[in-house]
Parts: sequence; structure tokens; C-alpha cells
Amino acid sequence: MADKNEPLIVFSPSGKRGRFPKGTPVLQAARSLGVDLDSVCGGRALCGRCQVVVTEGELSKHGIDSRLENLSARGETESRYSERRKLANNRRLGCQALLLGDVAIDVPASSQVHKQVVRKQHEAHDIQINPATHAYFVEVTKPDMHDPSGDLERLKLALQRDWQLEDLRISLPALQTLQTVLRKEDWQVTAAVRSDGEIVAVWPGLKTKLYGVAIDIGSTTIAAHLCDLASGEVLSSAGQMNPQIRFGEDLMSRVSYIMMNEGGETELTAVVREAINNLIAEVVSDAKLSLDTVVEVTIVGNPIMMHLVMGLNPVELGMAPFALASDAAASLPARDLGLTINSGGYVYALPCIAGHVGADAAGVLLAESPYEREEISLIVDVGTNAEMLLGNRDRILAASSPTGPAFEGAQISSGQRAAPGAIERVRIDPETLEPRYRIIGSELWSDDPAFPDSIPACGVTGICGSGIIEAIAELYLAGVINSDGTISGDAAKRSDRVTADGRTFSYTLLRGERDITVQQNDVRAIQLAKAALYAGARLLMEKLGVEKVDRIRLAGAFGAHIDVKYAMVLGMIPDCRLDMVSSAGNAAGTGARIALLDNNSRSEIEKQTRNVEKIETAVEERFQHHFVAAMAIPHDADAFDELEKVVKLPKKTVQMTTSGRRRRRR
Amino acid sequence: MADKNEPLIVFSPSGKRGRFPKGTPVLQAARSLGVDLDSVCGGRALCGRCQVVVTEGELSKHGIDSRLENLSARGETESRYSERRKLANNRRLGCQALLLGDVAIDVPASSQVHKQVVRKQHEAHDIQINPATHAYFVEVTKPDMHDPSGDLERLKLALQRDWQLEDLRISLPALQTLQTVLRKEDWQVTAAVRSDGEIVAVWPGLKTKLYGVAIDIGSTTIAAHLCDLASGEVLSSAGQMNPQIRFGEDLMSRVSYIMMNEGGETELTAVVREAINNLIAEVVSDAKLSLDTVVEVTIVGNPIMMHLVMGLNPVELGMAPFALASDAAASLPARDLGLTINSGGYVYALPCIAGHVGADAAGVLLAESPYEREEISLIVDVGTNAEMLLGNRDRILAASSPTGPAFEGAQISSGQRAAPGAIERVRIDPETLEPRYRIIGSELWSDDPAFPDSIPACGVTGICGSGIIEAIAELYLAGVINSDGTISGDAAKRSDRVTADGRTFSYTLLRGERDITVQQNDVRAIQLAKAALYAGARLLMEKLGVEKVDRIRLAGAFGAHIDVKYAMVLGMIPDCRLDMVSSAGNAAGTGARIALLDNNSRSEIEKQTRNVEKIETAVEERFQHHFVAAMAIPHDADAFDELEKVVKLPKKTVQMTTSGRRRRRR
Repeated sequence: MADKNEPLIVFSPSGKRGRFPKGTPVLQAARSLGVDLDSVCGGRALCGRCQVVVTEGELSKHGIDSRLENLSARGETESRYSERRKLANNRRLGCQALLLGDVAIDVPASSQVHKQVVRKQHEAHDIQINPATHAYFVEVTKPDMHDPSGDLERLKLALQRDWQLEDLRISLPALQTLQTVLRKEDWQVTAAVRSDGEIVAVWPGLKTKLYGVAIDIGSTTIAAHLCDLASGEVLSSAGQMNPQIRFGEDLMSRVSYIMMNEGGETELTAVVREAINNLIAEVVSDAKLSLDTVVEVTIVGNPIMMHLVMGLNPVELGMAPFALASDAAASLPARDLGLTINSGGYVYALPCIAGHVGADAAGVLLAESPYEREEISLIVDVGTNAEMLLGNRDRILAASSPTGPAFEGAQISSGQRAAPGAIERVRIDPETLEPRYRIIGSELWSDDPAFPDSIPACGVTGICGSGIIEAIAELYLAGVINSDGTISGDAAKRSDRVTADGRTFSYTLLRGERDITVQQNDVRAIQLAKAALYAGARLLMEKLGVEKVDRIRLAGAFGAHIDVKYAMVLGMIPDCRLDMVSSAGNAAGTGARIALLDNNSRSEIEKQTRNVEKIETAVEERFQHHFVAAMAIPHDADAFDELEKVVKLPKKTVQMTTSGRRRRRR
Repeated sequence: MADKNEPLIVFSPSGKRGRFPKGTPVLQAARSLGVDLDSVCGGRALCGRCQVVVTEGELSKHGIDSRLENLSARGETESRYSERRKLANNRRLGCQALLLGDVAIDVPASSQVHKQVVRKQHEAHDIQINPATHAYFVEVTKPDMHDPSGDLERLKLALQRDWQLEDLRISLPALQTLQTVLRKEDWQVTAAVRSDGEIVAVWPGLKTKLYGVAIDIGSTTIAAHLCDLASGEVLSSAGQMNPQIRFGEDLMSRVSYIMMNEGGETELTAVVREAINNLIAEVVSDAKLSLDTVVEVTIVGNPIMMHLVMGLNPVELGMAPFALASDAAASLPARDLGLTINSGGYVYALPCIAGHVGADAAGVLLAESPYEREEISLIVDVGTNAEMLLGNRDRILAASSPTGPAFEGAQISSGQRAAPGAIERVRIDPETLEPRYRIIGSELWSDDPAFPDSIPACGVTGICGSGIIEAIAELYLAGVINSDGTISGDAAKRSDRVTADGRTFSYTLLRGERDITVQQNDVRAIQLAKAALYAGARLLMEKLGVEKVDRIRLAGAFGAHIDVKYAMVLGMIPDCRLDMVSSAGNAAGTGARIALLDNNSRSEIEKQTRNVEKIETAVEERFQHHFVAAMAIPHDADAFDELEKVVKLPKKTVQMTTSGRRRRRR
């Protein structure tokens, strides 16, 4: 039988239970039992993080008669909190409610320290919240002529006394403000403490929220996401062009700029850091916060971007053997990188996998976690190069294939980046060869009567990566392009959209002031790019010893825009059940966000990247073999079987299985 | 009997011995046995640190027939080293000499890693050499398309392979130069690695010498000593005025300046850092070295100086309760303090003991190590305040007594700092009252016929601290000054040097354009100062429960200049055998040098300062009591007994034992 002086308390969802003397605060009982119940103010009814709900009528489930009145009534302190911050009727502050009789207590997700953030569409799984930096409220003992200890030493004592934090250090900027901060609100302060024991910042009074920014540095665009480190919520996001573009559109031009201009690396470092600072300022201001509440930044990017943001000269990455300064992750004071967050804040740069496979790929690896699955995943992040990860819980292989920038709309006659005005989808009538298309910035197809009014102000400006792929695939399906990639002169007889262009032919998608056309060289550029992509994937499959992958995830903007059907028509990706091919969204950015919110994920991704087997396509003879074999459209016999279910393939492709594998049975 | 194939090797001075297969290099045998034999190049005959000597004819002592020819003859590599760097005839490179038969090997002090530096006069004991940062030469594996690991990771592997260094990190500045440095001398580099595992710097090729600078920041002067971190040798020293003097002569005026001028602390920080940088540049240039070979700096100073150099606002130290921002030692990247040494280098700031007892006192504590002795030591460092340490291996107490700056020549009518032209010694004929004196900058007494020609160009400019003390003590011994500190009008009858000065009298030491005189107020200022000093010492003795100290050490410039006899005549210091009172030299600076050369001394001084019992004189009632009792000249009855042995005390002082202790038996 229950001892009336030692009531039973049962917590859900953990199921942890125990008996405590009457009058024990719920928060204290939770702590004794190791229940995950949050608190920043340490039980002073200030932060409201320890809210709990009494589950009544739980007799049957827990075998106890749980009643609301088995907790002490709301006292003055709790009522004051409720007036100030609105405490829902069924909620109690765990630090104020005292145990009087048996109760079942539910800890809602918002009151758990290690809550999970449900991730968005595209994303592989939920994020565990466990940030590297936590806020701790303390009241520090005042100095005294009889106790000449330093202010820092008394702050440490308070953090040890109230939060059991041992062996703390302090960042120099935090120390430099410490004396003023301690005296501002009568020796009550909130300290931000990193998991490695460094006090990175101290604010006067209670500060319940700390923030972080996840940064994804692409060669073309830089994106920033501001997150609440306790809830995991993304509060605001912003993006801007990478200002390094003025030193060179693609990475290698930027490296050339550095090679040819003394101090060029300093310029490129300065502009990328400035852009990051602008983005951080923007997301912080959008969320109506102040920069000094931002204590953590995580960064992903390709190896050259990672080098430049850290102030490392990337010239070695511009030539064989493509040696990284370091492939390890780096945890650095933000001030050492000139980033303007809290002056004691930290930057975590994710590790690079190899000279061509950067921290962005590590971010994808973390976001997709193929190492947790039994099925073989192929994950492809298409940028200027295509970074690929292949494997499962037993082995992960990585490589980068030199696709060039064609998939990004570069080196294409009417090509452009994916931006408003760019054609992103294309359908071509196989009989009349008349096209329909959609552009970024409009929801309508071009044959919709309302389409002309829906075009953005810039008009139709060009064709982006996904548009050119659909166009070429549709032209192939319509018999305009042959399996060897030639635009057929025969098609000129079927439509005046196909015209001779010197010794080759081109297809005019849109007539206007400046025609938007698909030229023979455009097809060649896409053929080279897709062959490189496919060859990389085949090489990895060969190394892993598999003939088929179980699932394919396409990361990045390209992966989000492309219709996977067309990718398969072109033979960009290996055979896979079409319903197992999906977009992974901005997986690199998601990886940065995971590393921001979950400190454990950092050691996880460091371990995983160390274990990844790195394949350098440039030194693999088999890559060249696969590459040549993959030039035809399409080339994967198995892919035909899969495709036939969803698209009507032209008859003549039957003979064109050049990849050396079994010919189509037809 | 000895096995011919496994000769015996015996090392001195360690006495370690062992058998190794024929052909084993002496260095390798030494390492296996844990013999302290240095090497930077790792056995490549480059650095010459592993030099050893064969002790022949050691048969009787070690029981073996040690012969020179029992080592392999000098080969080509060793001869090349000798041509380049001169290897003494009896010396061998331990890494090249191979064991062929039994040998006794002596490791000279210069080849030991943990050698001891014999300290100078005044200094308490030898310094153990064990710097925080060591140099390690390695050959790094070149990058390879088949191994995409980072340059840093291959450097770490080399350091682990050749030097068993594990879990290394790298400073960002070192990482930023790494790729260039590795490629400069064909992947041969020297890495400077701190004991905490951070690679702070990397240089191309072999670099056998690293350097450090010990800095002593006084309110008036700043001193720097450049040391060879391997030999401990002081290569050059320099000093300059503390440029903060233009913001206020004494510490409190500087704190007032900061209180009254927005951003004043930034100005004071900037000028002291600039002065330190100038001094470092000066000592480095004097030794014909480059700044980037300096990897460690240690700093001592009073609490206000320590705050300012670290960029901490010292205003709290200007008012009760005199709270330090932190009393702990700090190890900080030099770049965070704007100090221009190697960009990856570190600064170690010694801990402060209390709000008035700074890192300079910690330096004194380290240099003097009273905690290693059985006898009770009283250590006094006289500056604007007098920092005092009292105790032995059981307990150490510390306090600061508010002596004011009189002992530094300030607040004295003809006073000045100890500088050329200042009177530093004084003798007064007890009969005629005629003075003799010596000035800084001349070796002669003023009654020497050659004296006038020996005076520095500035002439005789004033009287410094030790001069005024001797003058007052001599005037007391000559009966001109009474025990209560009054300049007696009676003495005017004995000499025209004693003249009325309003209602009081003064003594003219030197007649000239501007007379140098000892006025009644000067005697009062010295009385107050010496009473404060004595009272502090008595208070500590009372707390420790001792009536007598076994030895007294006087640290700092004051301690070096003063004749201890006069200190005792005036009653500045408590009773002690005169031959047990001595100067400790610049003990604070020595402490900085020890912390620079011996990494273990850092944890030692951190532990010791934590354990020191801090006494705040301002809140101790007994301090006031002792202070009043100590105003008379002299006042310590026991001191008389001791003094009588060396000076003839005036008869009438017998009645003047005001300190409430036993009266003189006479």
C-alpha cells in the first residue's frame, strides 16, 4: 500500500516513477528520477520551461488515483508567472507544484529538453534537440572584502551549485563583459555554457532563449536559417547570391583568380564572410532578435567554400592531387572567422569527405543517414560536380563526378540559373512537336489562357537545368533526338521548329526577341554531364558490388526541381524502382541544421565521414569505361522496364543499349 | 657474462642501463630506457641535440669495459653534421652512433630535455626546463589521389608515428599556413606542439629553437626577457616606461581616468599592449631572431595591469570590495590580446592572489617557493603597495599593505624614482651631521675626489626610495630625528644643515640650485609607509601564530637597493637575524621566467595561489592597532638586539618601544 507521507509520482511519456516526501516539487522529483524536464531558471518560476500536466483518472493505467488536488494549489509565485506569461489552465510549473498525493504527470514535448523536431517533407527523419550550448540562470554570490575570489570564480561556483557544471572555462569576450553584466541585475545572470565546459556568454537577468544559424555556402547562393536552439524551430531564413561570383562564375575560375592575383584568397574570404554576416543580420532582424543571442553557427559547403570561409587558401584544391588543408570538422570561435554573432559564440564547420566531396556532402550524409538503413541508398547532390554517396549500414562510398555546370543551366545556349523567368518544365507533342512549358514564377502551363498574365515582369528569360533535361528527354521521346544524341535532320520535315544550324540541327522552344532553342551542343553538354553522373554511380555500385540500388535520393535544388522520370529517360541515374526515387530537398542545409540543433550529431558525422570510403573518379580506369558507355540516351536496359510503366518510349531505342549489359527483350 | 651480441649500455647521470642488439643507435637505446636525451629532428643527424660522450675506463664504476671503439665510427652523415655545425671531438650524435660493445655514455646537461638552469644571485633555486611548447621535426607523407586525407591529417600521422603525439589539434593561424609550409621544403617541417596537444605553428624544414618572452608589467616600468625555451638562457632583456603613466602616475589615477573617460580602459589597454609589442620586437631584434619563432609569452603584473592587458575594465579594483574579474591564471592565444609573436603563439597570465595582490605576487611566490621550506619566510615586494607573503610548507598567508608610493620616492619633497642622478645611499656623520652620499649612475661616494667627474650628465636630481630611508635612518642614529619622528630643533644648534621650516625643521642634504632636503613631512610620509609595511607583516604573523620569522626576502627594485640594516633601524620589517634578511632580486620577473620555461610550474603556482590564505588589511581591526603601534622609529624591541650587533644605536631610543612588547633590557 502507498505510504501517505511518500506519495507516488509517475511521469509520462518516460514511465519513470518514484516516491518522494510530501512537499517535494515536481521538478525536483523529475530530476531525481532523470526525467527529461527542462528548466533554465533553476526552479524560480521565471522561465516557464518546466510546465507539466496532471493526467487525471489514470487509476487503471498506473494503478494510482491521480488527481489535480494531489498537487499543491497555485501559489503567489506561480500566479504571478501566469499573469505575466499566461499559463494554460491545465498546466502547472513543475518547480512550484508540490507533491501532496499520488499523481501521474505528463511532460509535454515543449517541456522536454531533448525534444524531437518533426522534419519537413523531403527530410529523412526527425531531429533530436540537444544543442551544444545551453542557457543557465544563476544568482551569483556578491564579492566581499573577506572573500577576495574573482567574479568569475563565484559565477563558476553558482553554476556548480545549481547546475552541477564542473571544470568550466570562459571565453575572453565573456570575461571582458562579466563584471558589468553581474552588477546589472543584482548578480542574477544567465550564462550560455557549451558542452565542452566553456562559458561563451553571460547576460544580465534571465534569458531563456539562445539561437543558432545554419549556413549553407553554395558556389552560387548562400542560405542562412535562424533556429531556436531549444525548440529547434526555424524562425527565419534568407538567401543571397554568393558575391564571389564576381571573381568567377564557377569554382575553378575563382581558384584561377587566386592563383593569378596576389592576395586574391583574402578578397574571396572577405566577401564570403561579409555575405554570411549580412545574412545572419537579416535573419536575426527578421525574427526581431539581437545578434548577441546567437551563440552557434554551423557551416556546410564544398571544399573550396569551406577553405575560403576559414581563411585557408584553396589553390591546392585547384590541381591534382586536390589536397585539403584538413578534412576534419572544426569548432572555432566565431570571432576568429570575423563572424558577427555573440562575441563568445562558436562556429562548427562540418568535415569534408575528400578534395572534391565537401562539408555539403557531409551535411547530406548526416541529413539522409544512409548508414542507418539496411537498403542500399544512392544519394546524389548535383551542383557543378555531382557528389554521390552509395551504401547502407555496412559500408558507405563517396565520389564526385565531373558533371560540369550544364545541369545548372550553364554552358547551355539559352541556359540560365533556376530563377524567375526560367523555363523549368517542358512537354513536346510527339506528333506535332509543339511545346508546352512552365516557368519559375508562374503556376500555369504555357498553353493555359491565363499564362501570359502570370509571367513575371522579367518575361521568359531562358531555360534552367531541369528545363533543358525535360526538353531533351521529350525531344528524344518524340523521336527528334536519336539515342546517340544527334538532333535528327529528318525531324525538320515534321516541324519548322527543327531547323538546320550549319552542319547540325536545333529545336526552337520559344520564338521571341531572343529565341530559346535547344542546339546540338546543348544536347552534347547534357550528354557529357549525365554520362559523368551515371558513370560515377556505376563506379560506386561496382566498388560496392551491387547491380541495383534500392532507393535514390536527389539532393539540392536540382533534385527538387527535376522530374525523376526524365532523369531516367536520359539515363542520368541507374535503374531503380521509380517510386523509390525522390527528392531529398536541401539535404546539405538540413545537415547544417541538424549539426546546429543536436550536438551528438557532430561526433556522429565526424565518425561517419572518417569511415566513408573515398573513390577518386579521376584515377579510376573503370570510370572512363562507364563514362563512354553512358553517353547514349538512354543506356540502362533495366531502366527501360521501369520506365515503360510510366512513359511511352520510342521504338527505335530498343537497339541502343550501349552500356554492355543485357539487350532489351522485345 | 655479457652477451657479445647484446652489449650493455649504461647512461649517466641517470644510471639507467640495458642490453640492446648490436647496431642499436644510442638515441634509440636511451629512449627505450627512458633516458632524458633530447632530439628535435627525430634521429636524422640534423639538430645535434642528442650529443653524448663515451666515458672510458669506467670498468670499476659500472663493471664494464667502456671504450670509444665500442660505438660505430663516425659515418658520413655525422661527419657532414660536424663540418656544418662543429661537433666536439669527444662528442657523438646519439642518433648516429651504433652500439657495438659495452659502453658507458654520459648525457651532458645540454643534451637533456629537462635540464636545469642555474639561477643568478638572489634567486632561490634552479629552474627546471620543461617548456609548454616543443619543436618536432617530421617528414610528412605526400598527398595522393588514392588517399584524399587532408594535409593536417597526414601531419598528425607523422607526429604520431615519429613522436607518439596523440589527439592533436591545430591553431587556425597554423592551419592557414600549413599547405604552403608543407610544400616549401619537400614535406619536411618542424611543428611546435603545446603540451595540451595544440599544434601552434609549423615551419618548413628543421627548426631546432623556439623562444619565449617573460613580461613583467609594473605600474612604472615594463620589462621583457627573451629566453631560449630549450636551454633556458636569457638571450636579451629590455625595459621601458609604462606608457600608461600619461593617464596617471599611480594606479588609482589611472582607474579614475577610466571612470571619468568613456572608453578610457580601451586606451589604457591599447598603450600597454603596444609597449609590450615594442619590447618583444626589441628583445627579438637584439637577439637577431624573428618574431615568428616566439611561441610563448608569460605575464606578471599587479591586478590592474593584468586586467588592462587582458582587455578587462579594472574599475571594480578601484573601489571596495576590490573584486577581480577572475583570480585564475589564463592561457590565451596571443592574437586575442593583440600581441605580435607567432600568430599561433600563446600567452600565459599568472593568477592573481586577491584584489590587491596580483600576478606579480604570484610570480614572487613561484620564484621564492616559501611553500617548499620548513622555515617561516616573510617575503615583501614593495611597490605602491607592499605585497607580503608569510609562511612555510604548511601555510602561506598573503596581504597587501597600503604603504603608498613614498618608498618609490613619490610624495617626498625632493623625491624621485630610482634613476640615474638619484641619491640612493646616505651616510651622516653623527658628530658633525655632514652627509656623504652615492647616486645612481656613479660608483663613488660623494666625498671621493673623483666623484664630481663621475656624476651623470643630468647631475644630482633628487633622492630615491632607498636614499630617503637611509637618510632618515642616519638622521635618527645621529639624534637629529626623535623616535616619534620629529626633526629635533635642538639639532639646529649642532649644524646649519638643520634649519627651521615654519613650525617644523628640515635637514639639507645637498645645497645647490635646488636644495635636496629632508623635511618633516617627508619623515611623516616614510613613517606612515613603514608603519603600514610593518603592520601588515605583524598582522600576518599574528594570523600565522608566530612571534618571529626565520628569514626575510625583499623583492623588487626597492629590495635590491635598500640596505636591510636601515630597513631595520626604521622598523620597517619585523625582527629577524640580519644575515637572514636578503634581497630576492626581481622575483616577480623571475616567476614569469620560471612559468615560461617550466610548464609544470604553472599548475604548481595555480595550486599554491588557490591555497594561499588571503588577508584583507582594510577589514582587519588588528591592522589598525599594529599600524598605530608601528609609527615610532624603531619600535621592535627584538630588532634592537639584532641591530646592536651592527650599528651603534642612540641611547634614548631605549624608552621608545611602543609596540606593546617586552621593553629592552638595559
